[in-house]
Amino acid sequence: MRHLLSTGDLSRSEALAILDLAEEMHEVQRRSIKKLPALRGRTIINMFFEDSTRTRTSFEIAGKWMSADTINVSAKGSSVSKGESLRDTMLTLDSMGVDCFVIRHHSSGAVAQAAGWVQAHVVNAGDGAHEHPTQALLDAYTMRRHFRTRGLGDGFEGKRIAIVGDLLHSRVVRSNVLLQRVLGGTVTLVAPPTLLPTGVENWDAAVTSDFDSVLDRADVVMMLRVQRERMASGFFPTEREYTAGFGLTRERLARLKPTAAIMHPGPMNRGVEISSEAADAASSRVLDQVSAGVAVRMSVLYHLLGGEGEE
Amino acid sequence: MRHLLSTGDLSRSEALAILDLAEEMHEVQRRSIKKLPALRGRTIINMFFEDSTRTRTSFEIAGKWMSADTINVSAKGSSVSKGESLRDTMLTLDSMGVDCFVIRHHSSGAVAQAAGWVQAHVVNAGDGAHEHPTQALLDAYTMRRHFRTRGLGDGFEGKRIAIVGDLLHSRVVRSNVLLQRVLGGTVTLVAPPTLLPTGVENWDAAVTSDFDSVLDRADVVMMLRVQRERMASGFFPTEREYTAGFGLTRERLARLKPTAAIMHPGPMNRGVEISSEAADAASSRVLDQVSAGVAVRMSVLYHLLGGEGEE
Amino acid sequence: MRHLLSTGDLSRSEALAILDLAEEMHEVQRRSIKKLPALRGRTIINMFFEDSTRTRTSFEIAGKWMSADTINVSAKGSSVSKGESLRDTMLTLDSMGVDCFVIRHHSSGAVAQAAGWVQAHVVNAGDGAHEHPTQALLDAYTMRRHFRTRGLGDGFEGKRIAIVGDLLHSRVVRSNVLLQRVLGGTVTLVAPPTLLPTGVENWDAAVTSDFDSVLDRADVVMMLRVQRERMASGFFPTEREYTAGFGLTRERLARLKPTAAIMHPGPMNRGVEISSEAADAASSRVLDQVSAGVAVRMSVLYHLLGGEGEE
Repeated sequence: MRHLLSTGDLSRSEALAILDLAEEMHEVQRRSIKKLPALRGRTIINMFFEDSTRTRTSFEIAGKWMSADTINVSAKGSSVSKGESLRDTMLTLDSMGVDCFVIRHHSSGAVAQAAGWVQAHVVNAGDGAHEHPTQALLDAYTMRRHFRTRGLGDGFEGKRIAIVGDLLHSRVVRSNVLLQRVLGGTVTLVAPPTLLPTGVENWDAAVTSDFDSVLDRADVVMMLRVQRERMASGFFPTEREYTAGFGLTRERLARLKPTAAIMHPGPMNRGVEISSEAADAASSRVLDQVSAGVAVRMSVLYHLLGGEGEE
Repeated sequence: MRHLLSTGDLSRSEALAILDLAEEMHEVQRRSIKKLPALRGRTIINMFFEDSTRTRTSFEIAGKWMSADTINVSAKGSSVSKGESLRDTMLTLDSMGVDCFVIRHHSSGAVAQAAGWVQAHVVNAGDGAHEHPTQALLDAYTMRRHFRTRGLGDGFEGKRIAIVGDLLHSRVVRSNVLLQRVLGGTVTLVAPPTLLPTGVENWDAAVTSDFDSVLDRADVVMMLRVQRERMASGFFPTEREYTAGFGLTRERLARLKPTAAIMHPGPMNRGVEISSEAADAASSRVLDQVSAGVAVRMSVLYHLLGGEGEE
Repeated sequence: MRHLLSTGDLSRSEALAILDLAEEMHEVQRRSIKKLPALRGRTIINMFFEDSTRTRTSFEIAGKWMSADTINVSAKGSSVSKGESLRDTMLTLDSMGVDCFVIRHHSSGAVAQAAGWVQAHVVNAGDGAHEHPTQALLDAYTMRRHFRTRGLGDGFEGKRIAIVGDLLHSRVVRSNVLLQRVLGGTVTLVAPPTLLPTGVENWDAAVTSDFDSVLDRADVVMMLRVQRERMASGFFPTEREYTAGFGLTRERLARLKPTAAIMHPGPMNRGVEISSEAADAASSRVLDQVSAGVAVRMSVLYHLLGGEGEE
């Protein structure tokens, strides 16, 4: 593995290897002394052109716990803001000898393009509404642990995963669909027609706008954040109507299978796409997702950088 | 000790233990190789919702010198700026397994509230005009060292401490008053009536607006920064009148006891609340306060995080 | 060496010692495990009052690879933005016991002034249009390596170095001229009369506005970035005329000696001061300059901080 740009690039065995190593990394998180020498002397640049406390911090912690040197470059404090192009900045940092770029960018495709310029490894930490592969990996990690604790086995085959809400502006959904293609889960996308991405009919997923029809069979219900700003732009009429059609309300919560997992990439709009009852239910895996984020990112960074050219 | 939110929560023995360990930590600062393994593998998040170079840097240095991993999150570059609530951000970071949050926030009480949400330790690095406990601890540390070098002994009992100026907008004064309650010093608050906090009559401190009346008996004169903006808001008439009534002028400096310490939490407005003669006098402890900041914060962090669940 | 404020302060042997150690440091950059214990327990503050991703990151990497603790302070997130003076901020950080300040400031002379206030070492990372000594050192480092690979020997004596473009607003040119005074190279400055600094007639350099006259004898052609904003301010009439007179066009590229090095401190305006043919030519050393930046800065930091008060 040279880069992690899209979950669509992962083979089944690569995806499973990342999830398996993440289990071991998760152990580190429970220790009081959280430190492995695995990436000592490796340098990771976190380049975030969009604010994201949770993702940036998650990658920074992952690097530091494996003893890597981590350096933050934000668009605001960077030469990019005085007109230096992304390409020149990347080439400059690359020729300094850094080992990995973790990049979040507001434009779909920008990260993959950047990967073509440099010798270092590149991890896509979210590009526009396109992909967010480490999020999909931590989602899969969380699902697998949930399946195990519910006695549903280890595999994704035959599992039904509903992803519900603003699919159009989500970078999470595409990465999840592509990842389940190799892991074997069956994905159903649930959204109002105005919030479907173009070309969704070619994805490996069923599509419906009837949330209620999928409730009683789903093993996982993944709710997506809906931005209040979208309402103004006419994507949906009112918050209330959105919740009525696509919210995980108390009523819908009652209709889920007892073994079903409730997930959300966060931050949640309680009372809009998810009720507080659902967010805080025993079957809610929302904090597990966050908790898994560091372990999965440690695993990804190790797969890219670990063991390289050992001396 | 689980958190450090208020000096009012400290017992006398806890407060003295922090000051005593700070003496040892201060030695590290004088070495050319400043590094202890004490907090290796612990992760500290500096969450500053207000700018503060000196406090943030002081905590960051304290953590790094004890080999902790330190991560900065500022409100500006954080998801908080795009509407994620403080609570969601804290819960997210907490579930990643961080060990300690050091928080500065513009709202009084926000830090204590945040401490209720998380499993990690929390240090209040200043909340609104409420408290700034590590500042009060470094003040006490500086006083004690001053007393010793002037042959005034080790204890605070019988020592007279005058805190002078804008008490209303200060987060330092309350923390000092609460700390001296267990340490034993006698505090007098000096301010114009417009700059007194409500309820000050219930504090363990005498209150006066006659600075001259306390000059010849004070063992410590702690001058507070006055914001020029307050003038516009009618808290005091002119800078000149403020200085006349509440400035540590050259004339007042001459009337202090030769053993008295001059202190200021910084940054100073020279010529307003403190004259340059006083700021630079032999009895000025202003730079000692700053210098003590790292040692005291190392001690606080060690008391919270050190020795925990050793493997 | 106590500070590095100006290349004019370096003796010939000091300058050569920095270049020589940089050769060894450059080796580290090629390893997969980039880590030396050289500056363990030393604390370096990067104080950047102007955005500069490449220079700040370069210093941060240099410090981290030598195991120093590095801390970033930017003007934006700092107390300087709420009126604390540079002097108070420096004194504060200095009394915490930091070992070195790396400072970029928009005012010429500000860094040298700051060095007078503190006990720590100070490195000038660029002050206004005045100096940028580590850039000149990495330029010299890059030239020397180029000379060697072209069989031109190790020394600067007799080498002809043309520096071309906006000399008035450049902090690089003065540092290069002062450095070549001890290294022995012969510098010719090429610029339109409106872009010459006052007093340039007293520098150790020939001055001309006829770029073509220096082309066939130059061993190094160093192109400077020209800011498009200057055009509006009347420093030159049009971009096209600027390129015609002072750009390293394809035509001028063809007239250079085959052994000549093309350099640029970056970021480049392709098509303005340098053509893409020249930027990407085999004799272009632009990425080598960047790559040398970390090694040269490691060497400078080690000369200032290394071996001090070993225990």
